[in-house]
Amino acid sequence: MDTKVKTDIDKLRINGERLWDSLMELAQIGATPKGGVCRLTLTDLDKQGRDLVTRWAREAGMSVTIDQIGNGFMRRPGRNNSLPPIMTGSHIDTQPTGGKFDGNYGVLAGIEVVRTLNDHGIETEAPIEVAFWTNEEGSRFVPVMMGSGVFAKAFTLEHAYAATDTEGKTVKGELERIGYVGDQVPGDHPIGAYFETHIEQGPVLEDHDKTIGVVTGVLGIRWYDCTVTGMEAHAGPTPMALRKDALQVATHLMQEVVACAHRHPPHGRGTVGMVQVHPNSRNVIPGQVKFSIDLRNATDALCESMDQDIRAVAAKLSADTGLPITIEQVSAYPAQVFHADCVDAVARAAAKLGYSNMPAVSGAGHDAVYMARLAPAGMVFIPCKDGISHNEIEDAKPEHITAGCNVLLHAMLERAGT
Amino acid sequence: MDTKVKTDIDKLRINGERLWDSLMELAQIGATPKGGVCRLTLTDLDKQGRDLVTRWAREAGMSVTIDQIGNGFMRRPGRNNSLPPIMTGSHIDTQPTGGKFDGNYGVLAGIEVVRTLNDHGIETEAPIEVAFWTNEEGSRFVPVMMGSGVFAKAFTLEHAYAATDTEGKTVKGELERIGYVGDQVPGDHPIGAYFETHIEQGPVLEDHDKTIGVVTGVLGIRWYDCTVTGMEAHAGPTPMALRKDALQVATHLMQEVVACAHRHPPHGRGTVGMVQVHPNSRNVIPGQVKFSIDLRNATDALCESMDQDIRAVAAKLSADTGLPITIEQVSAYPAQVFHADCVDAVARAAAKLGYSNMPAVSGAGHDAVYMARLAPAGMVFIPCKDGISHNEIEDAKPEHITAGCNVLLHAMLERAGT
Ligand SMILES: NC(=O)NCCC(=O)O
Ligand SMILES: NC(=O)NCCC(=O)O
Repeated sequence: MDTKVKTDIDKLRINGERLWDSLMELAQIGATPKGGVCRLTLTDLDKQGRDLVTRWAREAGMSVTIDQIGNGFMRRPGRNNSLPPIMTGSHIDTQPTGGKFDGNYGVLAGIEVVRTLNDHGIETEAPIEVAFWTNEEGSRFVPVMMGSGVFAKAFTLEHAYAATDTEGKTVKGELERIGYVGDQVPGDHPIGAYFETHIEQGPVLEDHDKTIGVVTGVLGIRWYDCTVTGMEAHAGPTPMALRKDALQVATHLMQEVVACAHRHPPHGRGTVGMVQVHPNSRNVIPGQVKFSIDLRNATDALCESMDQDIRAVAAKLSADTGLPITIEQVSAYPAQVFHADCVDAVARAAAKLGYSNMPAVSGAGHDAVYMARLAPAGMVFIPCKDGISHNEIEDAKPEHITAGCNVLLHAMLERAGT
Repeated sequence: MDTKVKTDIDKLRINGERLWDSLMELAQIGATPKGGVCRLTLTDLDKQGRDLVTRWAREAGMSVTIDQIGNGFMRRPGRNNSLPPIMTGSHIDTQPTGGKFDGNYGVLAGIEVVRTLNDHGIETEAPIEVAFWTNEEGSRFVPVMMGSGVFAKAFTLEHAYAATDTEGKTVKGELERIGYVGDQVPGDHPIGAYFETHIEQGPVLEDHDKTIGVVTGVLGIRWYDCTVTGMEAHAGPTPMALRKDALQVATHLMQEVVACAHRHPPHGRGTVGMVQVHPNSRNVIPGQVKFSIDLRNATDALCESMDQDIRAVAAKLSADTGLPITIEQVSAYPAQVFHADCVDAVARAAAKLGYSNMPAVSGAGHDAVYMARLAPAGMVFIPCKDGISHNEIEDAKPEHITAGCNVLLHAMLERAGT
């Protein structure tokens, strides 16, 4: 590689306008009145989204293969196709009231990288692959990050196939219906490195006025269902001293979920997002309250410490009040530290391009978490407006969209070789 | 009245077995698998219940009139029919998962009083009337205590007629459909005194091992809808310090509802029965929480003090957290002290009959609350198992059922004159 080409590559920039236009065009499929997108996984709209993205890939000269769980792999050959591909990707399914950028940005940024390389006739040593992973969101079918999870053998294809939505439809049936069951065995091909660009989905970058988050890892996640059982009784005739009010006891534990996060700084997170009160009647003392607990932290040891903390608090609360409390873990995602090589590649690219940047920890799970089990992996974060995602008002600035994709381009080129 | 007759009347007792059998027969209409009753107001089952009760009344020689809101008045003439009747009654509609005794007991106890007088050929000076009031429960149509409320002119007939259920059906339409719109103008006839027997719906009598509660009054009730507004955000990427978690703020106010009741002893009651979290998703910080507040106390001044207390606490909480909190009153029922003459008549009857008894305050609203606005009124409570009502497992002992009806008989006879 001579100095002339090296200099040209340093100056290489993606076409931000084209990327933005593609994002807006994809966002038409399932567009909601409030400016968001509702394109649930394996629906007709998801099929339309997949068709559009694979058409764009083919138009950019890429080959497309689909695996048995419907993950799509769009490949641009390299000079040496015996090398494992440098992969990027994300998902194009959305939340029911989702935004235009979550996931979609990561996939279209990958295609824009390829389009840019094509524009400038740049060949890479290793092939480039852009993946879209099936059902990252998990809102229609659990578990979340299904396609990448099967690919990384975190759970089996059969387990994923059998998942049902609220109408009893299965993943297998819906994949067949939309024509996205491929031949490829999930996880059958090696990966050289994996990068994923994503909106931050949190307020930290915006709070620090930075363009790029160099993601060093992803918090471990523990999900629990908690049940407090009291005795339902009439709100009028039952004196305060004779009550077994499940909600009152539950409120103390709900507060402890947050207190527990504060006891585990700086990355501890504690959230009660879902509450169900029984019988949920104005003049009946609640007899039972069920609620979710979401605990996160930067290492599995810290997650485990939070787990023990919350269980101890619940046991004491139950002993003090005489009301049974159960805490059942429903899922767990280990903390994931990204590979230093990929983290550094992202940091170097951001610095080279002159973007303000900071190290960041991803509080949300991403397909990159599973990919990190198979290959060196890293992520590029850009700010989103007010840190809001999973919301129709989710928004991101065109200059940030462009910046993140430029960082992806240069990090991938460093790994792929030119 | 000679001494012989006086003695006979003191010895008069109702037929407990017959009353129990009638209760069990009425409970067949809308019987649930768990031993309860689901006989919502103005349904076909309610019509069947009304038909059975009015048939029994006619078989006992009573005349039956229905008023425009479907209240039924079953009358046994006295010697002097220009005197206003001594009335008893309650309701035969139930909660969706209701019991066999709530309301039904008060109506059938009235019929049993008449049957007993018939058995012994006893004439009263004033007429005796047994009422069943439409829609006491309020579970299908609000407001609660609808029939007695219209009768007492607490609100208009038109207001009650216009109430709709969740399917959009109106009270007027449903009354017409089941054939229970009568000619009588609600509230058009005077009442000499009103008594109501009812299960306590609370644990106090059982706790004190007493057979009869001599009800001195009914707590005032204030119902509110409370809304805490935060900002929904992803549970993972949002650091604890940057959250506006509506649920966490709400839990503090929920606890204050109970603390407020404790600050207003001995009759203060505070309950949060209904909670709705938005968007109610496991990994989303709640953006909005709505919940009900039910405050009760023995005087309107104490209810007002609780109202002010809760509003002050909410205002401080809102100022401390920066999250808006609204508290909207949705209904209010003033506290009602029963007339000394009726309270004493109940106390005297219980003492004369040798039943263990204690003064009691009703924590729940009853039709007697509205009747107390029109005439001297009083209530007779009997224990119910574990204080449970509004539940299919609601239960009461036959000896208590009998005792309460005997107290009703003697209290009514004292007022009606023999
Ligand atoms: N990115 C994302 O929303 N993942 C879903 C799993 C999580 O709650 O972190
Ligand atoms: N008795 C009864 O359940 N009344 C309903 C109104 C209340 O909550 O007190």
